[in-house]
This record gives sequence, structure tokens and C-alpha cells, in this order.
Amino acid sequence: MAGKQRTVGQDGTVTNDRRPPVPRSRTDDHTEGQAAVRRAFVQEQTGVVLRHVGHYSLQPEATAGNIENVTGVAQVPIGVAGPLRVNGEHADGEYYVPLATTEGTLVASYNRGMRLLTEAGGVTTTVADDRMQRAPVFVLADARAARDLGVWLREHLEQIRSAAQATTNVARLIEIEQYAVGPMLYTRFDYTTGDAAGQNMVGRATWAACEWIAAHHPDRPRYVLSGAIDTDKKHSQINMLRTRGKRVVAEATLPAGLLREHMGVTPAQLFRARQYSQAGGFMAGSANNGAQAANGLAALFIATGQDVANVAESHAGMVYSQVTDDGDYYFSITLPALIVATVGGGTGLPTQRECLQMLGCYGPGRVRAFAEICAAVVLAGEVSLSSAVIAGDWVTSHERLGRNRDA
Amino acid sequence: MAGKQRTVGQDGTVTNDRRPPVPRSRTDDHTEGQAAVRRAFVQEQTGVVLRHVGHYSLQPEATAGNIENVTGVAQVPIGVAGPLRVNGEHADGEYYVPLATTEGTLVASYNRGMRLLTEAGGVTTTVADDRMQRAPVFVLADARAARDLGVWLREHLEQIRSAAQATTNVARLIEIEQYAVGPMLYTRFDYTTGDAAGQNMVGRATWAACEWIAAHHPDRPRYVLSGAIDTDKKHSQINMLRTRGKRVVAEATLPAGLLREHMGVTPAQLFRARQYSQAGGFMAGSANNGAQAANGLAALFIATGQDVANVAESHAGMVYSQVTDDGDYYFSITLPALIVATVGGGTGLPTQRECLQMLGCYGPGRVRAFAEICAAVVLAGEVSLSSAVIAGDWVTSHERLGRNRDA
Amino acid sequence: MAGKQRTVGQDGTVTNDRRPPVPRSRTDDHTEGQAAVRRAFVQEQTGVVLRHVGHYSLQPEATAGNIENVTGVAQVPIGVAGPLRVNGEHADGEYYVPLATTEGTLVASYNRGMRLLTEAGGVTTTVADDRMQRAPVFVLADARAARDLGVWLREHLEQIRSAAQATTNVARLIEIEQYAVGPMLYTRFDYTTGDAAGQNMVGRATWAACEWIAAHHPDRPRYVLSGAIDTDKKHSQINMLRTRGKRVVAEATLPAGLLREHMGVTPAQLFRARQYSQAGGFMAGSANNGAQAANGLAALFIATGQDVANVAESHAGMVYSQVTDDGDYYFSITLPALIVATVGGGTGLPTQRECLQMLGCYGPGRVRAFAEICAAVVLAGEVSLSSAVIAGDWVTSHERLGRNRDA
Amino acid sequence: MAGKQRTVGQDGTVTNDRRPPVPRSRTDDHTEGQAAVRRAFVQEQTGVVLRHVGHYSLQPEATAGNIENVTGVAQVPIGVAGPLRVNGEHADGEYYVPLATTEGTLVASYNRGMRLLTEAGGVTTTVADDRMQRAPVFVLADARAARDLGVWLREHLEQIRSAAQATTNVARLIEIEQYAVGPMLYTRFDYTTGDAAGQNMVGRATWAACEWIAAHHPDRPRYVLSGAIDTDKKHSQINMLRTRGKRVVAEATLPAGLLREHMGVTPAQLFRARQYSQAGGFMAGSANNGAQAANGLAALFIATGQDVANVAESHAGMVYSQVTDDGDYYFSITLPALIVATVGGGTGLPTQRECLQMLGCYGPGRVRAFAEICAAVVLAGEVSLSSAVIAGDWVTSHERLGRNRDA
Repeated sequence: MAGKQRTVGQDGTVTNDRRPPVPRSRTDDHTEGQAAVRRAFVQEQTGVVLRHVGHYSLQPEATAGNIENVTGVAQVPIGVAGPLRVNGEHADGEYYVPLATTEGTLVASYNRGMRLLTEAGGVTTTVADDRMQRAPVFVLADARAARDLGVWLREHLEQIRSAAQATTNVARLIEIEQYAVGPMLYTRFDYTTGDAAGQNMVGRATWAACEWIAAHHPDRPRYVLSGAIDTDKKHSQINMLRTRGKRVVAEATLPAGLLREHMGVTPAQLFRARQYSQAGGFMAGSANNGAQAANGLAALFIATGQDVANVAESHAGMVYSQVTDDGDYYFSITLPALIVATVGGGTGLPTQRECLQMLGCYGPGRVRAFAEICAAVVLAGEVSLSSAVIAGDWVTSHERLGRNRDA
Repeated sequence: MAGKQRTVGQDGTVTNDRRPPVPRSRTDDHTEGQAAVRRAFVQEQTGVVLRHVGHYSLQPEATAGNIENVTGVAQVPIGVAGPLRVNGEHADGEYYVPLATTEGTLVASYNRGMRLLTEAGGVTTTVADDRMQRAPVFVLADARAARDLGVWLREHLEQIRSAAQATTNVARLIEIEQYAVGPMLYTRFDYTTGDAAGQNMVGRATWAACEWIAAHHPDRPRYVLSGAIDTDKKHSQINMLRTRGKRVVAEATLPAGLLREHMGVTPAQLFRARQYSQAGGFMAGSANNGAQAANGLAALFIATGQDVANVAESHAGMVYSQVTDDGDYYFSITLPALIVATVGGGTGLPTQRECLQMLGCYGPGRVRAFAEICAAVVLAGEVSLSSAVIAGDWVTSHERLGRNRDA
Repeated sequence: MAGKQRTVGQDGTVTNDRRPPVPRSRTDDHTEGQAAVRRAFVQEQTGVVLRHVGHYSLQPEATAGNIENVTGVAQVPIGVAGPLRVNGEHADGEYYVPLATTEGTLVASYNRGMRLLTEAGGVTTTVADDRMQRAPVFVLADARAARDLGVWLREHLEQIRSAAQATTNVARLIEIEQYAVGPMLYTRFDYTTGDAAGQNMVGRATWAACEWIAAHHPDRPRYVLSGAIDTDKKHSQINMLRTRGKRVVAEATLPAGLLREHMGVTPAQLFRARQYSQAGGFMAGSANNGAQAANGLAALFIATGQDVANVAESHAGMVYSQVTDDGDYYFSITLPALIVATVGGGTGLPTQRECLQMLGCYGPGRVRAFAEICAAVVLAGEVSLSSAVIAGDWVTSHERLGRNRDA
Repeated sequence: MAGKQRTVGQDGTVTNDRRPPVPRSRTDDHTEGQAAVRRAFVQEQTGVVLRHVGHYSLQPEATAGNIENVTGVAQVPIGVAGPLRVNGEHADGEYYVPLATTEGTLVASYNRGMRLLTEAGGVTTTVADDRMQRAPVFVLADARAARDLGVWLREHLEQIRSAAQATTNVARLIEIEQYAVGPMLYTRFDYTTGDAAGQNMVGRATWAACEWIAAHHPDRPRYVLSGAIDTDKKHSQINMLRTRGKRVVAEATLPAGLLREHMGVTPAQLFRARQYSQAGGFMAGSANNGAQAANGLAALFIATGQDVANVAESHAGMVYSQVTDDGDYYFSITLPALIVATVGGGTGLPTQRECLQMLGCYGPGRVRAFAEICAAVVLAGEVSLSSAVIAGDWVTSHERLGRNRDA
């Protein structure tokens, strides 16, 4: 049983004894033995037998660098959807997509969208930008000094770049954005980070750059390594505008006939409902004026060993659609902050690796292909759910009103 | 190998053959046999052997309602952190917290925060509000008709409530929010949903309510079941303001001595850095002016069978802190849109159930306790990361400048 | 000459002497004599003769309550536009609209839109909501106490209402919105305020309510009269959602033929460009996804004695448009925070009163009519500017490309 | 009388006759004679005698370029506040500030803040950035073409700059920002614009640039001159981040003794209340987490012939404050989108010119000085109002509770 331990004394007083810390080995903690020790500890402390948590094929040794106090695994069901045709610059083919989720209908919904998109010729994908940030804030004596530091940073960009890049073989400093507030200069150091998501490498590189700045600028400016405008693990408007991770666009044109056949909706109906969603999303101050990007991304991220917390940022999106002159439906979604990796993090763990391999996206040189697939998957979910909402409306309206008009 | 199949004809033309759909059984798809068929299919199509994906202890039969095309599992490592003392109204005790993640240092970071918080007497948690929405938009002839529909909805609230609640034994309609735009009336139907997250039950109930409205209002108003201001699976400002799921506050007062000892920082330092984060978060239009709520929530959500896509909404947060008159540090975070469940969804799957049981939070009557624990875990991560950032700054500044001043 | 006074001493040191305060009479300051004294003072201090500032027909005596240190006037040119047909519930007729501005083309642009709208049958206007706020924040011992205060407020609404309304014959408390953050309860007290904008009367009423609460609630809660979520004189998302002042919708359907004739554009062109503006406005985090509401409102506000600072809030807007089944253009704008008055403030000053009278909107019982006219004027500006942008594009594109296609 | 004309026919039918247009002369409309004609017209149509509107010293001839259909003036009372010491890089001295308003207490409130600030040594002001935008959106065949256009724009920046600058002797193109969405490339062309606000000159320059691009890029891309992310006359988050007009910081350190003496508050009280405002402003999605920037700016803008609609953008602000190690109060506000001019627009009209001259800010070379004064005035209002709110709280709390503690 969970809950605090209570010791009731002879006089009836209750003492809340402290519970012991989780056992760990300082020397060799990522072992099956230690995992078993912890499962036993949990059982002793809470009465719960971690039978299923203790059932896995991964080697605890292999989780070093991925987790501390490793105790077992969560078994998250994977369903395979697809094929999904992606016409990307990096991903080009029909893909079977592993989705790890516990939410019924999610796989079916995405699968339905993939079928339609694939029949329509596939999803065209474009990586429009690619950059990862660390955002130190420099605190100066006053606003004038902060502004002047900004000038100095521009003048010393090459030295700063050298200092930053000395810490890494991968990250490359693109630019330093500047945002002045009071006596502070907020910055965003933007890097390319190869096939890694890159938060850690840019943190280290930016720290080195800041130390160089603090040592060489005459004011010896103080700084905090994050002034919060990297908005790490947080959605933000600055991400919508300035990109974090990959900015990817997924586009498709859906023939009216296919839409009718697969989804029971017309381009006009989809487009009309889109107007409502746009107005609603604008009023609500929403991170995404589409339908369900977070669903597909979370499922794909869990399956492929992405940092799932990045769903917070990656789910942002901007849908743009049109009825074409031919009466078909052009549908696009732009993901401005898709944070993904094909190396590092959880990508090398057993099931995660297998899932990346299914997509041809395991290892170096594959991150843009993977980003394209992610965006294409998201579009499949948009097509599917927005059609479902309308079809429901249309059907009931039809039954109720005996007519068949656009909403 | 992933990628599209190409058939090269004798004349050198390339045909992109369509790949086959994922095999499924229409009668009995959630079986070990079907899962194995799909794994073989993936191998055939992509060349990837899903050895680890195929290693699990869950029964595919048990995943019906949780996933389609079940093929295997993602094994996501679980680390146990804690104990964490929670002084809630529903959760009261010291908890060991299962965190499923592949991001190194996450468990260690949260664990460090938990230790400090527990030594400081624990985290006080409060569920300030609790409501789940479906947000239909009604489309009328003009703005006046839309406004008048709003009046009518208020006048007929009881009948609407009856229609909605006839579809569910759990959901209870609290109120109908109204937001007029052009010829449309955007609404949010707010419900309590017991121990479920409730998106589905409120969808069904609201559909019934809308059908009742469409049938009884003289204008026979058309509607779309979501006008996008429920912002399902999307962060939004309306969530910050009006709550989605649970609005939970986690608070603690950290004695200056403990902070120094555990974290190497002072309340003044933490508070000063907080000012930078607040200004930065405001300028960036961030969903959270804290540090890393998404990290802890994603890990806890995966472990306990929550809908992980809800991280998109749940990671929103507002940190409020003060240096107390006694020189200690009062630290709070308010999560306005924490969407969690202790029944339904993935909560009943094997590893997920064990993890909820570890927290004493499996099944009916436990959702508020679980919400409180989630918020307390988030606070642990805030304490830990914000200290780490400062300590880094402080240490390097100290070395560099030979002094020990606040930033 | 402006600039600081410098006294150079014999030793060459420079002393920055303090300049004298602006002269005022404690007993009778709003007189022509005092105004003249101040103009002379300005001349003496700065060398500038306020000849034109000193030319006016208003009586300085009449400005008591409107301004302190009255010295003269700004002469802001007024142009008259119109007629504009408004089909409101409170304003019904064709209006000539006084616009005070110094920006060339503004009057012409609005005039052009008015002509089209009037020919199209006029603008239908609807006041969808009406409420003014003061938003005290209560600071409690912890979040639980804050939440419980919220319950208590609901239970004591009638007493609180009595306390608030005892201070005013006009303001009526509609409801108290609640938003919990940390140990604080942010509230918004919503009132109707008759024909006044009402910020002052709701401030006084809310202060009385808070004092009653502080005296009667067992915790004797501390409060600050504004916790900043009234967002007085500041645009905000909460205003978009929850209304401040009047929420007014202006609508019109523009026949394709008229659009072509007057503006040289088609509904399809306007609508296509609207999609770009919507996507852009969403990405930019804009207060208004229309074109130029602030222009018309500022000019109308100056002319009619409104508090011009309210342009900050009033310019928020949501455009919603459609191409109708008949191929015409339905165009609406919703102003969620239009703050206007027909009594109090500057409405009674000479030129301002004349301008309100031109609109039949001077004095009690006219504020909703005036709000409707304001919204209709805004729509005229939207029609005009959005057409101009497109026509420019279309014309140049036409010349360039020898074709005539939608963008 | 306002309202529509009704003609009741013999058969009782009502005809809504169209009202006549406002009379204008196509050849020579900016004359006293034409103004008189229009005043007579208004009297005839509405029954209102524009006696005061017709009283002015400006020459209607001088309003050409400022207004159409000139009919008279709004007389807006001007009060003079000050002196206000500004320690800027461009404005350096003690200023008397003309404020045109009809809102009682505004001048007194700002005056009070100016006195305190001046006694405290004045306001330090810094222009941190300076740029005006026009933001065309280019619409391409797909996202890939849009991205590639972005590359092309960077490669052809010099030619584009030449095309833009050929239209103007003043505006200088700084850079072209790029934001990809779907098949579109949103851009912001950033310029310096000398002493003008510059919206018109950058519009013309950008149009020329776009025409050059459309003529030279192989895709002949279509464009609309504004894709709405210039957010002209609209507050936006992009303005907060990327600046529009001047980004100006006003700073001052207020000795605790002076605060107590002038305002009856302590730094600790001000700072505590600031925390509430920050949390509230963040939750509300506010354009400014300060108190009342719009008040001072609107009054100053009317007096000095600024485009008053720019209050919509200019009122955005970020307050940052601290209690210093010495126990004093450091107070800053950053205005990220202050749009002002000392040439063009209404600056040359009679009263407006006199008011600019009072500040030593009329004509070329003065716009940054004027921007600094504007920001300093805003800070005066912040100091004054935030103290007043607290002092009210403190006083009543004191009376009520017999103690004197911080909130």
C-alpha cells in the first residue's frame, strides 16, 4: 500500500517516519541484479509486485545514459499503421509506421488517413529549417550596457563560434538571436546538431561560449545559461516563429472523389469546418489550429525512442488548406518545432531501434528523413480526424434535415 | 529495408507499386497469433525482425480498446524515484514514483528534488478545479441569432443537461461557456468525469446535447462537435485561464539551510533567476514559465498508462515563488490543465497498473490523489533543475570572479 | 529651448539646476487665467509660444474632471465620412461619421468602405456581450485557502453584490470570475455600467466589495485591487475570450458585382488573401487578424471624447468571412473589447459632444448604439483596406503576368 | 437628428432614401470654404451645429496630406506635466510634457511620477533597436519552392535592397526575416526610416522589392504586400520579440526614502505587488505586464501629432524591477514597439508642432530623443499608478488590521 508510514506511539501520537531512499549501487547500478533489488524494494515498501515491469528483453546495462534507478520497463502496446507514402527529399517511399499508444482508435484513425493520403499519391514533405537553441540571458548594469553587449557579440561572432564549437564535433553555431529587456540581453544561440536532438550538446557549447564572453568582454557580464526563451520542453510563440528542431511542412492534395469515397466528406465541407477551427484556435490562443498532432507524435515518439517530453514543443502546428481550382482539397500542416533524433537518447534501445529500422531511420544521416515521416504521419491524423468530425455532422444533419448541405 | 518498392520495367520505366495493407483479422484481431502475423509482415516488408517488440508479458487480448493492429510493445525503461512526501487532501504520504523515460539524468534530477522537498516537510497539493470539455460551435444565420441561441442555452440548461447526462453514468455537466464570434456561438461544455480523463464520455454527452439543441431550438442550428476551443491535445491560453482536466497547485517552503546543503544555492539566487525566467517566458509567449514540467509528466504518464499526448496540454504551468520573511524560499507551481485518469485508457494494462498501484492510485476514487502526486513530482523537477542552472552559474561565477554574489 | 538647464560655475563645473514645477492654483485651477499662466510658463521655460495650443472655444472651467494643469488644446483635424448605413438594434440609419486624425487617406479609405457597405444594404450590428471589470487578487496562506475563498465568494455573492452596488447607482455586478494561481485567487468582477465606460465606478464598487470580503471572511484575506487580469488599458487574450466593454459583431454581405465595381476585386480574391492574413495573424500572435481596426477607432475615439488609451484594448478583433453559395462575400468582424461611453469622460466637451450628436449618440441610453456604429465603422475600414491590398496585387499581377487569376 | 431618412408614401409604405455623400471639391478641397460647406451639410443632415468643431486656428490648406473631407477640429485639452528629467543618449534634460486627454487624473498621475523620478535623478533611456516593417507573403507552388525562394532571397539581398531603396532617400533595408508556412513564405522586410514612423515609405520600398523579385525569380512568385505579420496597427507577440518602431528601455532607481515620502510605499511592497501583476499578466496573455503605458502614450501621441492608432502596437511593454542590494527600487520598462515620428504625419500641424517644440523634438534628427522621452513618460505613469494601487491597499489594510506589513 502506498501512503506514509505511520508509527503510533503508546501515547497515541503519530510519527511519520521517513521512508528509506531507493537502493542504488554507486559502482555498478545498471544491472539486472540492481533492477531486481529495486523491484524487491518496491514490493517491500508498497506491497506491489512488479511482475510485468520486470518482464523485458532489454539489458539493464544498455540503459546506462538513458535512465537512473532502472527497475524494469513500461510495456506500451505498439500497433503498426500504413503504408504511408512519403514524397520527401529525405524520405521517399511507402512506410509502415509503429505507433505506441494505449488510446483506442488512435492507430485506426491514423491508418485511415494514411490510406487516403497514399491513394492520393502521398505526402510531400519539406524540412524548411533546422536549428536547436540554448538561450542564455546576460545581466548587465543597465540597458545601454546590454545593448552594447549585443553589438559586441556580433563583432565577436567568430571567436564565440570557435569557443562553442570547441566542445563538440557536431553542433555548428548558426547565429545568435538577441532580445533586449531592461538591463538584460536575452539571446538564443542557434545550432545545427546533426542527427541528434541536440539539447545537451548545445547546452555545453553555449556554456563554453558564455564563459568565453564572460572572460573577454570588458564588463565581465554575468549570465544564466537559460533565460527561458529557448523554452526547452515548453510550447511557445517564439517556437512558432523562429523554429526549434525541425520546421517541417507536410502537404497533399486530396481528390474530391477519394475524399468522398474514403471519408464521406467533400472538400467544401472540410474547408468550411477549417474556418471554424481557425477562428476558434485564434481566439483560444492555441498552439495548433489543427486537430491532433500530439496524438501521432506521442505514439511515434514512444515507439522510436524520442524524448517524449518534446511533444510539448513538437505538437505546435499551423494548418493551411484550400479548395483548389479543380475542386480538390489541398491540405498542409507546418510543424515549427519538431524535435527528433535518429542517434542518441533512446534511439538505440532494443524496441526503439527496431521501430526506427522499420522506417529506415536508425542512425546517422537519417534525422531529416525521420522528421519528414513524422510530419507526414501528423498530416494523416489531421485528414482522418477532421473528416470524422465533419462526417458525423454531415450524417446527423442529413438525417435530421433531409438535405445534404455544407455546414 | 524501408522505402518504396520500385519495379523497373524492360523499357526502364519505374513503377511505384503499392505496398499491401497491414494484415488484420476482422473477427479476432487482438491475439498473439495476429500480433505474430504482423511482426512477420513487417519483417517481410521491411527486413526488420521485431524481436524485442515481440517480447512482452501483456496479453494481446487485453489491449482491445487500447490499440489497433497490435504488434508488440515498446519497452520503455522505468526508474523509481523517491520517496516524495505529498501532503495532499487526497494523497497523503511518502511515495515512490515510477518514471518511464530514455533521457539520462531525468530520474536523477527528479529524485534530487524529491529528496529536498521531502526533507523540507513535503509538498502541499491542492486540486483547485476539475473539468473536462467538449466545445461545439453552432453556426447561425447571423450574429444576432448566435447571441440569442446563447440566451436560449441558458434558459434550457436543465434539459440540455438531461440530454447530455443520459449518455453517461459518470459525466456531470457543470456549465456551458459561451464565446461569440461572427455568426457563430462557440461553446465549451464543462463536465466532471469521475476518475476518467473523460474526453470520450464528454464527446458523447455533448453530441447528445447538441442533437437535442438542434432538434428543439426553433432555428435548428447546425453545429460542429468541436469548434477547436476545447483545444483537445493542444496547449492554449484558454486552458491556462479556464482549466482543462485538473487545476492543481503544488507548494512547498524550502528552508534556506536545506537549499544550501542539497543544492548549493540560496533563496535569493533562485529568486533572482526566477525573475529572468518570468520576463523571458512572458516575452516568448511560453506555455509555462517554469523549467521542465513536461519531463516529469511525460515519464509519469508513460509509466502509468495515461494518454501521453495530453502532455501537450498538461505541461502548461505558472510558477509563483517568494523569499519569505524568514529568508526561506516559497515555491509553487500551478498546473492549469493536468489531464489524468486512474480508470480507463491504458491504466489497466499490466505494467501501467503496477505503477499506479505503487502510488496507491489504481482504480476508482483515486484520480485526485494521482493528480496531486503528479503536481508534486513536477515541483520536484522545478526545484532540481532551477537549482542546477543557478549552481552552475554560481560555481563558475565564483571561480571566475572570486566572489559570491547573486546574479 | 528644451533640455536641461545648465549653470556653469566660475570654476567651469556644470550644475544641473532643478527646473520649477508647472504652476497651479490649488483653489481654482481650471480657468482661462491659469491656462494662460501655464502657457507663459512654457514659453519662459522652453521658448515655445503656445499660440495655437492657446486657441480654443472650450471653457477651461468645463475641463475640470477631464484634465489637470489645463493649458490649451490639441487641434486634431476632423474629416467627415459617410453616409454609413447601420442596421443595428440600437443604431438604425445612415450616419455621417466624424474622424479625427492626422493620417492622410484614413478618412478616404473608411469613406470608400462605407460607400460600398451602404450600397450593399448596410452593416448589421450586434452587441453580443457587455461587461466591465475590476480584477482584485486575493493573497492567502496557501492554495487551499485560496480555493476555499473561491467557494466562499460564491456562497456570499449576494452580500458582496450589495456591498459593491452600494457605491453606485449604475454599476451592477454580473458575476465574479475566479482564476487560481499558487496561494492567490485572481478574480474578475464583471459589471454592467450603463452608458459609461465604467472603469472608475467598477473600481470603487470592487474596492467596497473587497473591503467587505476582507472584513467578513474569517481569514481576513489581503488583496490588491488589481491583479492585472482586468488588463486595463492593455490588450490581452482574456479580453478576446471573456469580453471587456462591449463585444460587438459587425456583418455584411457584399455582392460580387458591387465589389468588382467599387473595389476592383472578387470575393474569391478577398477570401484567398484572408487565408494568408489568418495564417499570418495566428503565427504572429496578433491581437486582430483583420486589417486596421485601430485606425478607425482611434479617429472616432478622439472625435467623440472617448478615452483614447482604450484603443489598446478595443482594437482587438476577429474577422470571419465566407464566399456565400451565391458567390457573394460575407464579411464580419467581432470586436471583443470595445470600450466606449456616451456619458462621462470627454463626451461632454464641446467638439466631442457635437460629434456624438452628429451620430445621435450623446448622453444616456445611447452607448449600445454608439458601440454598433463603432463596429460598423471598423468593418468599413476592413472592407476598404483589404480590397486595396488585393487590388494592388491583382493589378500589378495582371500587368505583369497578363492574366487574371486569384492569388 | 441622426438616423435614416424615411419617406412615407401615400400608401403608407416607407422608403429608406439614400442620404447624399459628403460634399467635396475635386480640385481644391482643403479650404476653409469647403470645411464650412461640410459643416453646413452636417447641420442640414443631422441638425447639429458644428460650432466648436468649426473653431480652430489651423489652416485647412495645411491639412492636405493629413486628412480628407476636413471639416473642423477636435479640441482635446492639453495639460502640461513635469519637469521630467531624462538621461538619454538623445534626450538629456528636464522636460515639460504636453498631454492631451479627457481622462481626469491622468495628467496628475503622470506628474506625480515625474516628480519622483526627477528627484531620484531622472530616467535613463536607451534605444535598443529601431526598425519598421512591411511583411509581404509569397505564395508558391509548394513548401519546397517557398523554402527555396527563401534561399534565393538571401542570395539576392543586395539587388533586392537596391530595388527597395531606389524608391526612397530615407529608408534603408536592414534585413529580410523569413517564416515558412505551408506553400507560403512570410517575410518581414525591416528598415530604418530616419525620423519618420515610416509605414508608408517601407510599404512603397517593399512593393518595389517584391516587384523586382516577382520579375527576376524564375518562379515569378505571386505575393500579397502584407501577409499580416507586420501586424500594422495591431499588437502582436512578434512585435514583443522582434521590435517594431523603436525598442526603448526606460530605467530608474528609486531610493526607498523618496518612495516612502512621495508615494507612501516601500520597495518591498512595490515589488511584491509586481509579482502579482507578472503572474496575472502571464496568465491573461497580456500585451504589457505593467500598469498603464497606453494612457501616457495616447495623451502624448495626440498632443504631438503622432499616428494615434499606433497606441495599439506601442502600448506593449515588459516591466522588470528589483529591490537593490541597498534596499532601493530598480524599475524598468521596455517598450518593444514604440512607433513615433518627428517629421511627417501630423507633426507639422500647428498645435502638434508647438508641443513637439516644447520637447525640443520637432523635425529631423530628433526621433530618438522623442522616443526616449516617450519611454520616460511611460515609466512615470508606471511608478505613479503602481504606487497608488499599493498605497490604497496599504492604507486600508493598515486601518483594518492595525499593522503595516507587506502584502
